[in-house]
Amino acid sequence: MTILLAAAFDAEEAAQWQACLEAALPGERWVRHREGADDIDIAVVANPPPGSLDGLSGLRLIQSLWAGVDKLLRDPTVPAGVPLARMVDPAMNTAMAETALWAVLHLHRDHDLYTVQQRERSWRQHPQRRADEVHVAVLGLGEMGRTTALRLVGNGYRVSGWSRRGAEVPGVMVAQGPEGLRRVLGEADIVINLLPLTPDTQGLFNATMLAAMRPGASLVNLARGGHVVEADLLAALDAGHLRHAVLDVFREEPLAPDHPFWAHPRVTVRPHVAAATDPRSAAQVVARNILALREGRPLAHLVDRSAGY
Amino acid sequence: MTILLAAAFDAEEAAQWQACLEAALPGERWVRHREGADDIDIAVVANPPPGSLDGLSGLRLIQSLWAGVDKLLRDPTVPAGVPLARMVDPAMNTAMAETALWAVLHLHRDHDLYTVQQRERSWRQHPQRRADEVHVAVLGLGEMGRTTALRLVGNGYRVSGWSRRGAEVPGVMVAQGPEGLRRVLGEADIVINLLPLTPDTQGLFNATMLAAMRPGASLVNLARGGHVVEADLLAALDAGHLRHAVLDVFREEPLAPDHPFWAHPRVTVRPHVAAATDPRSAAQVVARNILALREGRPLAHLVDRSAGY
Ligand SMILES: NC(=O)c1ccc[n+]([C@@H]2O[C@H](COP(=O)([O-])OP(=O)(O)OC[C@H]3O[C@@H](n4cnc5c(N)ncnc54)[C@H](OP(=O)(O)O)[C@@H]3O)[C@@H](O)[C@H]2O)c1
Ligand SMILES: NC(=O)c1ccc[n+]([C@@H]2O[C@H](COP(=O)([O-])OP(=O)(O)OC[C@H]3O[C@@H](n4cnc5c(N)ncnc54)[C@H](OP(=O)(O)O)[C@@H]3O)[C@@H](O)[C@H]2O)c1
Repeated sequence: MTILLAAAFDAEEAAQWQACLEAALPGERWVRHREGADDIDIAVVANPPPGSLDGLSGLRLIQSLWAGVDKLLRDPTVPAGVPLARMVDPAMNTAMAETALWAVLHLHRDHDLYTVQQRERSWRQHPQRRADEVHVAVLGLGEMGRTTALRLVGNGYRVSGWSRRGAEVPGVMVAQGPEGLRRVLGEADIVINLLPLTPDTQGLFNATMLAAMRPGASLVNLARGGHVVEADLLAALDAGHLRHAVLDVFREEPLAPDHPFWAHPRVTVRPHVAAATDPRSAAQVVARNILALREGRPLAHLVDRSAGY
Repeated sequence: MTILLAAAFDAEEAAQWQACLEAALPGERWVRHREGADDIDIAVVANPPPGSLDGLSGLRLIQSLWAGVDKLLRDPTVPAGVPLARMVDPAMNTAMAETALWAVLHLHRDHDLYTVQQRERSWRQHPQRRADEVHVAVLGLGEMGRTTALRLVGNGYRVSGWSRRGAEVPGVMVAQGPEGLRRVLGEADIVINLLPLTPDTQGLFNATMLAAMRPGASLVNLARGGHVVEADLLAALDAGHLRHAVLDVFREEPLAPDHPFWAHPRVTVRPHVAAATDPRSAAQVVARNILALREGRPLAHLVDRSAGY
């Protein structure tokens, strides 16, 4: 039995992943290309070139190294009947909570304004608010959203959350449904998007939803570029309805050099770095799932393809 | 008996402070100018113009609205025999811990580099470290330093501290003395300065001390500009020995428009906003001390003039 590692890695990343995976699963045979390997039963994937898994009839598990699987689900050549597991790693949840906390502190303590002021050599102080006066909404309360909401509560913020089926998160006011979303958006000073990209959430932040946000509120998108209608966001920022957007993900990545986000004083651009998979811990997660398959135990972190996440 | 409020406030600040102080101390008589008030026994001060307290022979308490009293202690017209209390307010400690945490997240998660990259429209990802791989040193473990160190521990960082007499801070490795400082500086990825400005700490960050910092480390100065020898810091940054400096305080404030810090890619400039006194909570602190004086109870937060803090 052979495991295919199908990934758009550069040489350095490939070497680090291969070393971690082989150390975590010493008994397995790994290949980087399907040619010449006719007994591939597991594919470990990270942004695989489209068609990479096409016609692999012996597959019993597709294990993603990334948390988001929206791209995989849009690739029609990924075999539909094969169990698909995504990456769930506490280290990645923590990295995401750190990014969200940084963005919240950045906005709460006016570092968006001070960053612009430094460029303009302007010495001007803005009134200071307490954390408990800042209301943060976390959309999506899965692995990333829950860890993020708890971290924000622990650092003194007023936190609300929104998810499809509702959830219990200590210290967080949780809403669900379309009216729940409108209420949460109307109250929050900072909205953090941690939803998966699905047919239901695609383009969620359009003109209507952005208008439902509180005047002067900010958007932090750490999930997927497809959640945001970019022209509508720019219009809401330019109209002064929204204060700022911190964007880690974009419709097209890398963001084109002539994109208006780069130089916009109300936009903070980050190159999709909110939460990278750490090969050291993630290889252990992969190993546990592959051992479960080998030993006939239930697989973890399976994607519900009908829900899209 | 009359209380003098001697402060370099603009009209809006003055109105807010006056409202909070009068609400907290309804029975007292307040004046903004000493003329015509010959029974002033308390001075509440915030950056008072030099000479403001000169010859006030009936003074029994000078209460500062700011935490740092270095400027007051350098003013020879401030009566030497009168008890001097500084501002100690948990809300301000929290504000300082937030600023320090923001700076640590900013450096740990490479937002210093990404801020420059946004200006250059450059999409490049840097390797991600875990918080427990980042060693932060907090110099000064008083009101601000202790709160900051605990907040950093709570957010997963490896934290060490340094103070004059040593201290017990749960989860923090505490050093003291000159050798302790060298050890702490040699180990830390990020050094946060929260010392008071005294004859002993003036110019602490000179070429020798900056050279004792780990190559690639960053300095976060949230205390006083006088702690840093600016030319030595610029040299250490330009030589590539230090990675970055986050500076909230400067030798001369406001920072002059032609100062090299403003446009330096390795310097983040903030206009002295790490921790503002919040009039709402600080007025309560002032009220408690003034009531203690009126009722003959011991005064809190008195400055040790021989130690300079
Ligand atoms: N920028 C980065 O570096 C980066 C890194 C990793 C991940 N991500 C993004 O983060 C996303 C979230 O990851 P995760 O691991 O937290 O996902 P997850 O565990 O699957 O959680 C998804 C959450 O979204 C909720 N949800 C899904 N569809 C919804 C809908 N239509 N309406 C309301 N709520 C809905 C779910 O509700 P239920 O609880 O009711 O199911 C759940 O709470 C990923 O899909 C990926 O796009 C970004
Ligand atoms: N940027 C801003 O917005 C802002 C706002 C507020 C305050 N500040 C600055 O923050 C400073 C600290 O405030 P704080 O309230 O935390 O002061 P604090 O409670 O008096 O604490 C001072 C700490 O520094 C230590 N220390 C003093 N001299 C030392 C020396 N020579 N060597 C080693 N350690 C020494 C003290 O050691 P011991 O514990 O042994 O006494 C104590 O731990 C203020 O003085 C002010 O300059 C800045």
